[in-house]
Order: sequence, then C-alpha cells, then structure tokens
Amino acid sequence: MTLRENTGRRRTRRGGGPKAAPERNVNYRNLRNPFPPMEVFSSDQIAAMHETSLRTLEELGMKVLLPEAVEVFRKGGARVVDQMVYIGRDMIDAALATAPKSITGRAGARDRDILLELGSLVFQPGAGAPHATDLARGRRPGSARDFREYTTLCHHFDVFQMMSPSVEPQDVPTHLRHFFTTETQLTLTDKFPFVFARGTPQAMDCFEMLRDFRGVTDDGFAAAPHCYTIINTNSPRTLDIPMAQGLIDFARNGQLSIVTPFTLMGAMAPITVAGAITLSHAEALAAITLTQLVKPGAPVCYGTFTSNVDMKSGAPAFGTSAHFQASLAAGQLARFTGLPWRSAAGSASNVNDVQAANENQMGLWGCLMGGATVIIHAAGWLEGGLSVSYEKIITDVEVLNMIAELCAGKQAGVDEIGFDTALSAVEPSGHFFAAPQTMARYNTEFYQPIVHDYANFGTWTERGAQDANQRATKVWQDILAADARPSVDGERLETLQNFIAKRTAEGGAPPES
Amino acid sequence: MTLRENTGRRRTRRGGGPKAAPERNVNYRNLRNPFPPMEVFSSDQIAAMHETSLRTLEELGMKVLLPEAVEVFRKGGARVVDQMVYIGRDMIDAALATAPKSITGRAGARDRDILLELGSLVFQPGAGAPHATDLARGRRPGSARDFREYTTLCHHFDVFQMMSPSVEPQDVPTHLRHFFTTETQLTLTDKFPFVFARGTPQAMDCFEMLRDFRGVTDDGFAAAPHCYTIINTNSPRTLDIPMAQGLIDFARNGQLSIVTPFTLMGAMAPITVAGAITLSHAEALAAITLTQLVKPGAPVCYGTFTSNVDMKSGAPAFGTSAHFQASLAAGQLARFTGLPWRSAAGSASNVNDVQAANENQMGLWGCLMGGATVIIHAAGWLEGGLSVSYEKIITDVEVLNMIAELCAGKQAGVDEIGFDTALSAVEPSGHFFAAPQTMARYNTEFYQPIVHDYANFGTWTERGAQDANQRATKVWQDILAADARPSVDGERLETLQNFIAKRTAEGGAPPES
Repeated sequence: MTLRENTGRRRTRRGGGPKAAPERNVNYRNLRNPFPPMEVFSSDQIAAMHETSLRTLEELGMKVLLPEAVEVFRKGGARVVDQMVYIGRDMIDAALATAPKSITGRAGARDRDILLELGSLVFQPGAGAPHATDLARGRRPGSARDFREYTTLCHHFDVFQMMSPSVEPQDVPTHLRHFFTTETQLTLTDKFPFVFARGTPQAMDCFEMLRDFRGVTDDGFAAAPHCYTIINTNSPRTLDIPMAQGLIDFARNGQLSIVTPFTLMGAMAPITVAGAITLSHAEALAAITLTQLVKPGAPVCYGTFTSNVDMKSGAPAFGTSAHFQASLAAGQLARFTGLPWRSAAGSASNVNDVQAANENQMGLWGCLMGGATVIIHAAGWLEGGLSVSYEKIITDVEVLNMIAELCAGKQAGVDEIGFDTALSAVEPSGHFFAAPQTMARYNTEFYQPIVHDYANFGTWTERGAQDANQRATKVWQDILAADARPSVDGERLETLQNFIAKRTAEGGAPPES
Repeated sequence: MTLRENTGRRRTRRGGGPKAAPERNVNYRNLRNPFPPMEVFSSDQIAAMHETSLRTLEELGMKVLLPEAVEVFRKGGARVVDQMVYIGRDMIDAALATAPKSITGRAGARDRDILLELGSLVFQPGAGAPHATDLARGRRPGSARDFREYTTLCHHFDVFQMMSPSVEPQDVPTHLRHFFTTETQLTLTDKFPFVFARGTPQAMDCFEMLRDFRGVTDDGFAAAPHCYTIINTNSPRTLDIPMAQGLIDFARNGQLSIVTPFTLMGAMAPITVAGAITLSHAEALAAITLTQLVKPGAPVCYGTFTSNVDMKSGAPAFGTSAHFQASLAAGQLARFTGLPWRSAAGSASNVNDVQAANENQMGLWGCLMGGATVIIHAAGWLEGGLSVSYEKIITDVEVLNMIAELCAGKQAGVDEIGFDTALSAVEPSGHFFAAPQTMARYNTEFYQPIVHDYANFGTWTERGAQDANQRATKVWQDILAADARPSVDGERLETLQNFIAKRTAEGGAPPES
C-alpha cells in the first residue's frame, strides 16, 4: 500500500475539507520535570555539607559591604565585626521556614505566568553577555539593536518561559539603560521580565514602570513578583554593595531575587565539587536570610552556578563532568531546603560549533537530572558568557523543544499499542505508512524540527550543503522579519514613555557600585 | 597567595623528584551506569506491551526465510505454515529462562574483557557505514584503509570497550572481506571483536581465526563468546536467511548475537512509541527464542534501535524525543526480561555540525536513562549510518569520556568538603588556587579534554580560530601517526596469515543472502 491508496485520506481531501489528521498542538509554557533526580552524594554527605555551610557562616562569616545590610543582619541576631557578619544557624533555619516554597511570577499575560517550585521546569536563554555574535554580522559589542532583537527571538519561542538580561546594550548610556531594557521587555514581549540590581534608584524606576504598565496597584505589585533579578555573591564569602542592595530592594517590594553564587571550582571556590557546593550553599543561605530578615515570605530562589576551571590555564570550563556533578549536588541541597532552585548550562566555546553544542547539552542534562526549577543560559551562551550567539539560540532551542516534548510523556493504551490498527494491519516486510494508526497520527505524532535537516546527502548537497549554523541564520532572520509582538495598550505605552522622558530629563539613575 | 608560594610543591620540585600532586588515573574500561532509570510507561502499560508482543507472535507470526530455522522453530513447538512461524508464549518463557542474564565477552587481553548485564555500560563507535568522511580527504566509499584507520582510532580510546563494523571496506572483494576485517581486528586492537553474519562459511572461517589467534581450545572457545554479531530483523516480522543463519551459527558455537530490530516509527514500524516497541520486542523475542532452541544458555543480548521518520519526507531522524522515549520503553522491557540490552545513539546530519552533536548526545541520554548495557553508534555516526566521520568520533569521545567520568562518581568526605584545607584557608574575595586542598588535587581533580578548547576569544583567534572539527582533525591524525597497537605473537600471526592464504586460494567464502 502507498499513501495514495488510503481512501479515508483521499475522501476528506477531495471535498476540500479539513485533513484527516489534526494539526499538532504543543504546550511548552508550563513544564514539569519528568527526569528522575540523580544523586551524586549520599544523604549523610549532603547533611555534612549543609552542616559545614552553617559552620562556615557561624565561624568564618560573610563580608557584607553595604552598611544597611550589615545592620539588617545585626538586628536579626548576627554577630558583626566591622564588615564581617557571623550568621547563626537559628537565623538560617528561620529564613528557610519563611521563604516560600512555591512562587508564581506574574507576566504580561496570565498564560505567560510562571510557577517556580521544586518539580516545575523553566528555561531562560543565555544572559549577561557584553558581546553579541551572528554569522551575518560577526562578533561585536552588544547594542540596543541586539538587545531588542534578542528579546524578539526569546519572545518567539514558548520554551523560554522567562526573559533574561541577554546582552548588554553598551550604546545606551548607563544612567538610562534600565529605562531602555525595561521598555523593551514590556513592549516586545509579555513574558516575565528581568531587572538588574544596580542600585535602589534604578530598581525603583523599573518597579514603577512595571506596575503602571501592567496596570496593577501598589498592593497588587507587592503581593506577587512581576519581575526578578539575579544576585551573584562575590565568592568566596563576600556580598557587595549593589547585590546586597538588590536583595533588600527586591524583598522589600515583593519582587523575586534569584540568589546565585557563581563559583568556579579551583578558582573562587574549592577545587572539589563537595567543597565548592558547600561554599555556594553557605553564600546562598546568607543571601536568602537577608531577604527574609527584610521581609519574611519575600520571594527568593535558591541558586547555583558551579563549574570548574582548566587548572593548566585558569580558564573557565562549562558542560564538564564536574559542572554536571555540581548541578546534581546543588539539586540535592535545594531539595534539602525545599526551595525552588536555579541552575545553569552554558558553553566555553568561542563559536557555535560541536564543542558549544556538546557543552551546552551536557550542562542541560546535569540541571535536568539535578531537578532544577529554572535553567539559565539554556540557549545561546558562548565564551563562558562573554557573547550570545543568534545561531546558537536557534540550535539550542531545538534541544529545549525536544526536552519539552519529553515533559509531555507518551501514552501506551490500546490505541497506541495498536494491535488492530497497526500491528495486524501490515504484512511481514511491509510498511506502516498507510496503516490506520499512521493515518490518524501522521501530522501530530512527531516533533517538527526548526533547524535540524533530515534530507539525505544528495538532496542536502543539491540544496547548498548548509550546516546547522547556516540554516539557523535564516531561522532567526525570519523571526526578526516577522516582528511578532504582543498587543500593547496605547495609553499605558504613553504613560511609560512619559515617565521615561521625565526621568531622563531629571538625569536618569546611574548604576551604583 | 600564588602557586609559587606553596612550599610543599616547591619542596618536591626542588629535589627534581615527583610533583606533589599525583598524575591523573582513570579507568574507562569497566563502567557501571550511574544514571537513574527513567520510565516513559507505567508497569501496567509495559505488561500490556509484552502481552501484545506475545499475541503478535502467536497470532500474526514471524516470516522466517531460512528452512533450517523454520525447522528449529517447528521442533521447538511452533505452529508452522509455509514460512510463517507462530510462536507460543511457553516457548518465549522457556527461552527467557535459559538466556543468560550476565555475559562476559572475552577480548584479546583479560583487562579488555567486557561484562554485559543490566547495570553495566559499554560503548561502541558508529557501525556499518558504506562511506567514510573527514575534513582532510572528504567523503568517499569506505575502503580497507578506512577500516584499518577506524580500528586504530577505536582501539585508542578506552571508552570504546568493544569494536564495531565501523565502515565497509568496499575495495576488498566480498568473498575475502571477512578475512580482512577479522585480521585487522586481531592485529590492530585487542578489544572484543565483531564478526558479520553473512553465511555459515564466513562465520566458521572467523571462528577458526579467532580461536587459533587467541590460543584457546575448541571447548574454551565454545564456553565463552570471543566475538559478537548484530542480528537485524527485517521489520515488520521477517527474519531473513543470513540473519537466521547467524543466530543459529553463533548460538551453536557459543558466540554472542546482539538481536536488534531496526525499526523506524511510521515506516517499518507503527508510528507510536508503544506500537513500535511492541513490534520490536516481539521480533527480538522471536530471535532470542531461536538461539535458545539451538542451544539453551547461548549468549544473546536483547536489542532495540527505534527512532522515527520525518512524516513529510519519510527520511529517518535520530536523536529526537521519540527516539529518546523509544529507548526508555525498550529499557523497561529489557528489565522486564532481565536480559542485557543494547540501544543506539546516532545522527541524521550530513556533516559533523551542531545538529550532529545535539542529535548524538540526545540519543545517548535516552540510552543512558533507559539503562542500556551496550550503546552502539555512540560516536562518529552521520547520515543515519551512511557515513562515519573521523572528526565526529573524536568530538563524540569527548562526551563519552565525560560520561565515563560521571560513572566514577565523586566523594564528599571531610577531605573533599575541606573546611580546614580550603574553606577556612581563603579570605573573603580571595582565590583557591593555592589552598592546600587545591595543591593536592590540581593534577587529578578534573577531566582533561581531548578536543574542547577553553582559551578566551583573543587567544583562540591568535591561535587560528579553529573550531572543534578542525581541532579534531589534528587529534585523529596524531593518533594514526602514533600507530599504537597491541603486541602480537609472531607464531600466531603466521598461523593466521597462512590460514587466510590457504582459504583465499580455496576461493574464500562469498556472503550468503
């Protein structure tokens, strides 16, 4: 039999009616992690690491550079000597008791809201890069255009459930940059936005823009996070001024801090996975405690980003087995605390090549099997974060989409096993192209790739022998050309732009450090 | 502190003695799978699939093209109508009872022996390709030179624990080809070799060459597998002449058959994962039963290689979410039977690009989380098996090596957590390069990559801006230039060559079909 022999299909097509098989419908917006959590350490070892983290905070302490934060810790019961803050385990226990175990981030549309808790799964593209790169225009310092374009690309793919500070728009003056990045995230996407913690004035500007543009009251804004920031400690054991200020500002205003010590084993962290994660855990607990001292119940996410350096050169490496194991260990500690947690993939490669693909995917699997709630740098991140690649965001999305497909699972009922509709319908050495089961599902059963190409060598050669990167260039160019964006309320847009004009005239808000 | 301030290291170096930190020592030869098995279906669904496989064999039957095999099935209790063999569940149960659950493959050296059972983990490079390709010489029909070179590459990496029929040496006449491939595997490597099932005369030649070259008796050879073959059914439900003959010959002589229906969902198998794996399971059970009817206890490995086709073009796809889920389902059925099982990774890409890397790694993770014992096509496989790539074998080995590192696990004892030797030894915002813990481990803690490059963009550019493929070219060229091979007993080599000369003069042994 051939496809043409299938009368059912011919019949429906003859009348110009709908096709026999329904179109494919996927939902990549609300994912649950289906992968069994993997443990690298025993529960006793995890308990010993937690205990050592507590001892580290009690005996070695954190250096906190912001006097206001030191004062919050002191009032909360910490022993303070100059900038050194010694945090007791009772304070940590209290913070872990009040930190929410489940957080809903409010996006521009309700079906873009994100749930952050152990078991949920949220992807975010590569973030924080000073440079952008693509095959058409080369590698260059990040610009406003790059930030806007990257926002459009991130908006396009449902598998990115939150926005990231993708690329630094270096051509926008620093005292006005937060206006630009916030306006861009409000007008080109309706996903959960990111706000940098670069001092109180910028944070307050961003909160006001968000609140008014989203049309929520002060109370509504404070009641649920409408944005998030990333807080990196200065490992080892230092919390600098803008990061401490960010923890205070975001907690006080009910907005989400994702606390992430960025620790490279052998450099700013111990060379061992166990040691590095013990340090990272201690620093995360200190920062989480600060948020809960400011406002018990403030939304905060436990975070880890631990990989290793190459001990010959000191250069950072990503997607290594050590990175993978660090993600597993961090996941075990996150489950120990019960908090949602973020981890990270990423690549050290300088171009989007095989190394970049393998590193990023290896990093992803460490996060997935570590049970991460949020996986940052899940796509597009090159050079250990010094650039984001337009092609790599496309090729990595292919992997993320397939992981999202795995989240949906598969059925094995009578229809799927298909003794009557498939197995007994085809003779030995025959084919299943026209089996009833196939005809009912040929449009819907399989994921449709966005950049992978299954043509054979001859056809592929005739079509120009383009590798995945070259095909990815066309994919991102088409997305940018389509320029799909959410509808925006004209009045709110005017309010936003007036606010930015007023605050620009007032001198904006330089970043603090 | 800097590295130079470490007195311990200076002291040992001053005397010209060994370095303070030991060299890295890894063992990739005997791996256990550390990844928690993932289930895509419930145990009830798996039982229903097994039940439907039994029904398929009982009611729909297998078409068996070799009369001798039909007769074996008939004598074993099967109902036979012409070439159709209807196999009862009692026969399947009996076969699963006698098939060994643990198999040791005997290689050329005892430390190359492989253990095949649920829980052990063995990798094999891409196999069966008619073409070879590399950046230096382009894509060409496979040749004797390619087969030899690929054998040397496979021999070089411990993470390949068994040999594969990598590439077809098309310039060797088919009636002599088995002499060439066996001699090559005996002289260029001491790993567990592969023998094609292309008729009894070839198999007997190969068994004799192996037995004599390994220096074992007839009884010793029959008592343990010294080689293996791959048996592909002709899905759906057909067992052709050379494959049926191979099952009989290998079982009768105590050699290992790896039974693998190669089923593409939507083409030669049902479009659903559940249907395709039910068919694959039925065919594997039929072939396994044949081996046990020939010789109860004969070594046989359960196998699956199920991916999907692109329903728009009919082209095979690999490393997809459907492929991943099929591996999980097959793993569940393998555990249901208790047999060691093989799965497969692979790529549909036409070049070793980002697609090729992502597909292969995605396929690998499906196998790993499916608990596969043997993962075939784990490296180097392009175009859905129509070519093997010299560069891809190198870039994939990087991933396999890191997976082998994950098999080794990590410790989290007092030394690794390192409160005294690391955490308390570094001031806030300091670095750990010279911490006592680092100094004791800097040579040994991290995997050293073979092709991944961690240089920053500037350094990488100065060095020629080579991507991973270009660097991989140098890696394989260096391995071939070094030409490391196991020592070979001169007398046995002479015996081998005399045998080949005699059998060649007698006309060799044409393949049967």
